[in-house]
Amino acid sequence: MNKKVIRDRIERLRQTLAAQDLTAIIVPTADPHLSEYLPEYWQTREWLSGFTGSAGTLVVSADFAGLWADSRYWVHAADELADTGISLEKLAPGQPNHIDWLAEHLQEGDSVAVDGNVLSIAEQDRLLNAFDANDITLITERDVLTEVWTDRPALPTASLYVHDAQFVAQSAASKLAAVRAGMSDAGATHHLLSSLDDIAWLTNLRGADVDYNPVFLAHMLIDADTEALNSATLFIDNNKVSSEIAQSLKDSGITLADYDAVQDALGTLTADDLLLLDPSKVAVGTLSKMGDDVGFIEQMAPSTLLKSVKSNTDIDHVREAMRQDGAALCDFFATFEQRLRAGERLSELDVDSMLIDVRSRQPHYVSPSFPTIAGFNENGALPHYRATPEKFSYLDVSEGEGGLLLIDSGAQYQNGTTDITRVVGIGQVNADHKRDFTTVLKAHIALARAYFPDGIASPLIDAICRAPLWQAQMDYGHGTGHGVGYFLNVHEGPQVIAYSASTPKERAMKEGMISSNEPGLYREGKWGIRIENLVVNMPVGNPAETEFGDFLNFETITYCPIDTRLIEPSLLTQIESDWLNSYHSQVYAELKDRVDGAALDWLSERTQAI
Amino acid sequence: MNKKVIRDRIERLRQTLAAQDLTAIIVPTADPHLSEYLPEYWQTREWLSGFTGSAGTLVVSADFAGLWADSRYWVHAADELADTGISLEKLAPGQPNHIDWLAEHLQEGDSVAVDGNVLSIAEQDRLLNAFDANDITLITERDVLTEVWTDRPALPTASLYVHDAQFVAQSAASKLAAVRAGMSDAGATHHLLSSLDDIAWLTNLRGADVDYNPVFLAHMLIDADTEALNSATLFIDNNKVSSEIAQSLKDSGITLADYDAVQDALGTLTADDLLLLDPSKVAVGTLSKMGDDVGFIEQMAPSTLLKSVKSNTDIDHVREAMRQDGAALCDFFATFEQRLRAGERLSELDVDSMLIDVRSRQPHYVSPSFPTIAGFNENGALPHYRATPEKFSYLDVSEGEGGLLLIDSGAQYQNGTTDITRVVGIGQVNADHKRDFTTVLKAHIALARAYFPDGIASPLIDAICRAPLWQAQMDYGHGTGHGVGYFLNVHEGPQVIAYSASTPKERAMKEGMISSNEPGLYREGKWGIRIENLVVNMPVGNPAETEFGDFLNFETITYCPIDTRLIEPSLLTQIESDWLNSYHSQVYAELKDRVDGAALDWLSERTQAI
Repeated sequence: MNKKVIRDRIERLRQTLAAQDLTAIIVPTADPHLSEYLPEYWQTREWLSGFTGSAGTLVVSADFAGLWADSRYWVHAADELADTGISLEKLAPGQPNHIDWLAEHLQEGDSVAVDGNVLSIAEQDRLLNAFDANDITLITERDVLTEVWTDRPALPTASLYVHDAQFVAQSAASKLAAVRAGMSDAGATHHLLSSLDDIAWLTNLRGADVDYNPVFLAHMLIDADTEALNSATLFIDNNKVSSEIAQSLKDSGITLADYDAVQDALGTLTADDLLLLDPSKVAVGTLSKMGDDVGFIEQMAPSTLLKSVKSNTDIDHVREAMRQDGAALCDFFATFEQRLRAGERLSELDVDSMLIDVRSRQPHYVSPSFPTIAGFNENGALPHYRATPEKFSYLDVSEGEGGLLLIDSGAQYQNGTTDITRVVGIGQVNADHKRDFTTVLKAHIALARAYFPDGIASPLIDAICRAPLWQAQMDYGHGTGHGVGYFLNVHEGPQVIAYSASTPKERAMKEGMISSNEPGLYREGKWGIRIENLVVNMPVGNPAETEFGDFLNFETITYCPIDTRLIEPSLLTQIESDWLNSYHSQVYAELKDRVDGAALDWLSERTQAI
Repeated sequence: MNKKVIRDRIERLRQTLAAQDLTAIIVPTADPHLSEYLPEYWQTREWLSGFTGSAGTLVVSADFAGLWADSRYWVHAADELADTGISLEKLAPGQPNHIDWLAEHLQEGDSVAVDGNVLSIAEQDRLLNAFDANDITLITERDVLTEVWTDRPALPTASLYVHDAQFVAQSAASKLAAVRAGMSDAGATHHLLSSLDDIAWLTNLRGADVDYNPVFLAHMLIDADTEALNSATLFIDNNKVSSEIAQSLKDSGITLADYDAVQDALGTLTADDLLLLDPSKVAVGTLSKMGDDVGFIEQMAPSTLLKSVKSNTDIDHVREAMRQDGAALCDFFATFEQRLRAGERLSELDVDSMLIDVRSRQPHYVSPSFPTIAGFNENGALPHYRATPEKFSYLDVSEGEGGLLLIDSGAQYQNGTTDITRVVGIGQVNADHKRDFTTVLKAHIALARAYFPDGIASPLIDAICRAPLWQAQMDYGHGTGHGVGYFLNVHEGPQVIAYSASTPKERAMKEGMISSNEPGLYREGKWGIRIENLVVNMPVGNPAETEFGDFLNFETITYCPIDTRLIEPSLLTQIESDWLNSYHSQVYAELKDRVDGAALDWLSERTQAI
């Protein structure tokens, strides 16, 4: 990106702020659905700043432009923001964020704009908390960017499709009834859903409006009264919906309305109504026409928990998707190593394209589930690194030297969403590589084999994973585990295995949840390590004890060898070696009939016991 | 306790409620200082209900009397409440507490009394939250009990004494300056302290107004302005203060006022003042004369953190107190086992008196630090069991059988507060005893040798301790660790190693904090196990890694053998056995020159490597 272009855009924005009598503008990385991946139309923060990271908040005033980004992006953002006039503001625990900055630097009577269409209710509360005391006005009713970004792209128009019936265990009507039961528990008369994965889950429909997540832009309004007119309405661009799908939705009790009609529909609610919504997943703009007298119930949407708790049938499908993914990875690794051995010069980009190639040949493949991270040596130390044609590394090592290649990738299959990280040694790895890799492996195994009380808040078990790393005075800056959807978002809640997270009861671990287990270690400028499998919360079979309550443990459902050549065996306990050998014999058993030739040889060799 | 006496008291209370036009009364277990141990004058809940537990809330209305108690007390309370007309209401996570019960059962217009002198601001907030919506009036201005409990005991009158100067590293004046620095950080003009251990710490004075905690009844009001008249005032019964102590306080900038004058003093604050207080440690009655326009800063008192972070000098004194305590325990165990071997019939009460005897012969001994828990077999399964002359067990086992005796005890020495739990086998212990004991030991060792990030919220490391128990599908219902004072309360904050606790930043682990490490296991009707040592947060010496931040680890400072005869060695890993052997060789080294004869023989035998 030409830095002059960015400077011009910021300048145009400043002129518009002045013309509209605004002191400052906040440009979050968000859309009306508070999604992780944004349609281009809402990529305003990237368009204005040139910073391509997937999170961050831009603040611009007449004499300041700054972008708040967390540590994952600092190296990357410093580069992209250089010479744009936008300062990188490092977001870190205990450091002032953009709200603190604004509260400190603005004056009484100042006005700050932020587009209400991309501002969650929860975030608006935080802003108002900070601004009210200082008599700063928050303006959320206009999208200043429409004046600045004149050739703004259109909204996406991909058609909806049905989640293949062979992989769907519960009908939309039944899911809707379960959501209504949750509404009833909360005492709600209505429920607004803006989060795209909740809507896709509930309707058993999928879309392609954004990259990686098979979702479609929509809102949904559900009336507790099934007899009411339009008791459940899907607000969506009608052109995306085939007549068959429209009929099927109608049969499930869901009627269609235009995407932009959601505000008007909410405008019909009265003081007798109680609207359930998740304040972190609904934008204030969506409620712009709703009366002030309508009551709210702010809590997690019932579908968020229902969606995260997979049925046994769903889990069986995911196990099969994992076998497919594992077989594809055997193909990839066998070919990759063969080409390296043959002296071919390969790059991080080659890894990405090879992975997409092998996965796309698997049944029920849809797309990657997130951008591949293939980071060699120092690039691997950036947890959110992405090689681009403009900037990537070759997997080159000097004679007698070695390096580590971190590969974090995954796919969307109709029968499951995958997400796996492996680290591969290139050339001659040394004792430092092995010590780091083995320590991360110890952490991975500690969590993989942990038992924990049914219903414990997920952040509380993170210490079990990190203990071996902490023991070596090592740590990593990201969470250990996120929820994973079923042919849905690779990041979903409510569970999050991260000690930095708060511990509300909504984050309780329940049977059937699928999470990642991905401890890591990052040595800036040297290498990064992360070992990631997906795990399912399973009740302990045939409990040995029953008087101390119910316990869950993890079933690891990712089937792919962990590179034993990177292990320093003296650092593993017998229990850890046993776990690894047992895992590898399971991987071999799951995959041996699905690969052949070089891939089978590779599988066989890499699943040998240590 | 005669149950008829209780029924009469409740009846008298009901008559008073009717006469005062009150629907119900809440009688908490509390005093104006929100202390753990209450002077008899404030033991209203016990006097009314006959329930002797150290926690619980009584609610009485015209047609209901119920006592809410947590699981520690259920067995015990059921017994004491039988035939009193008071129902036992079991307090448990997710179950309605007394506030929920009142909100559900009272009508609009009803009035509930609770003595504001024993009601914390935080608890009042919870009550008002529940009552306001239902138009229930909360009356806190009267102490209904004065009408009912006519022969109520007087307040205690024990004299103050000075914490022996050889064990005090920081002057009261210096501590006061540190507290004022905390007030300044918070922007407070004044600070009210009602918590007795904070006041004792700050003044370097001790008292004997309650059992076990060497504290005295007082409030303290601190003005940020050291030039102000009475810039720091200690509100206390003047008869308790010698002229030497009064002079010394004056020299430190602290003036004296009558205990009851605190309300009037707070009444002089104006709308320009900002009063810092901890809402869970100040009673609403204390603020009864303060103007509504005085501003509040509700947060943890600065002294709470200052007090918990012990200096190296303090820790050295505590190590010495621990050696004394360990030597006393060698004497105790040697004699105890000798008497048992000689065929003497001993009881749980004998254990208590023998422990007090050996400890009281140590230098600087003051008192027990809490009531000894000596629980044999099923009594040990009650974590808060206390043998009484009315109800106790003999340590009897049948020929060829065995049992477990749990002993949790501690002492106040001028150079430190101790708290230790050991489990002793009586007779022939079996494989179940050993499996349970060894599993608890694994948990104890896991925490004892853990490293963790400096500043982590203490509840987050609990899972490291519990992981080995969870792995065996076992758990325990109490916290793993509490803070321990320096010749002060055996239970102090802010840290608490318990996954049931919330994780605010105030609970961060800091260098110098002393905590207990006390995992357990309780089989109802069979036996209880707990292994407790005290541990200090120490920075990792000569860090092997520095790029991942600072780490703390625990130094175990309790020196007493853990009974290796109860261990099933096959359940221990090499790392765990190594830890235990290293601990025992340290215990031997610390104590060998302090004991002789049978005690030395015992020490030598019980610290042999396994």
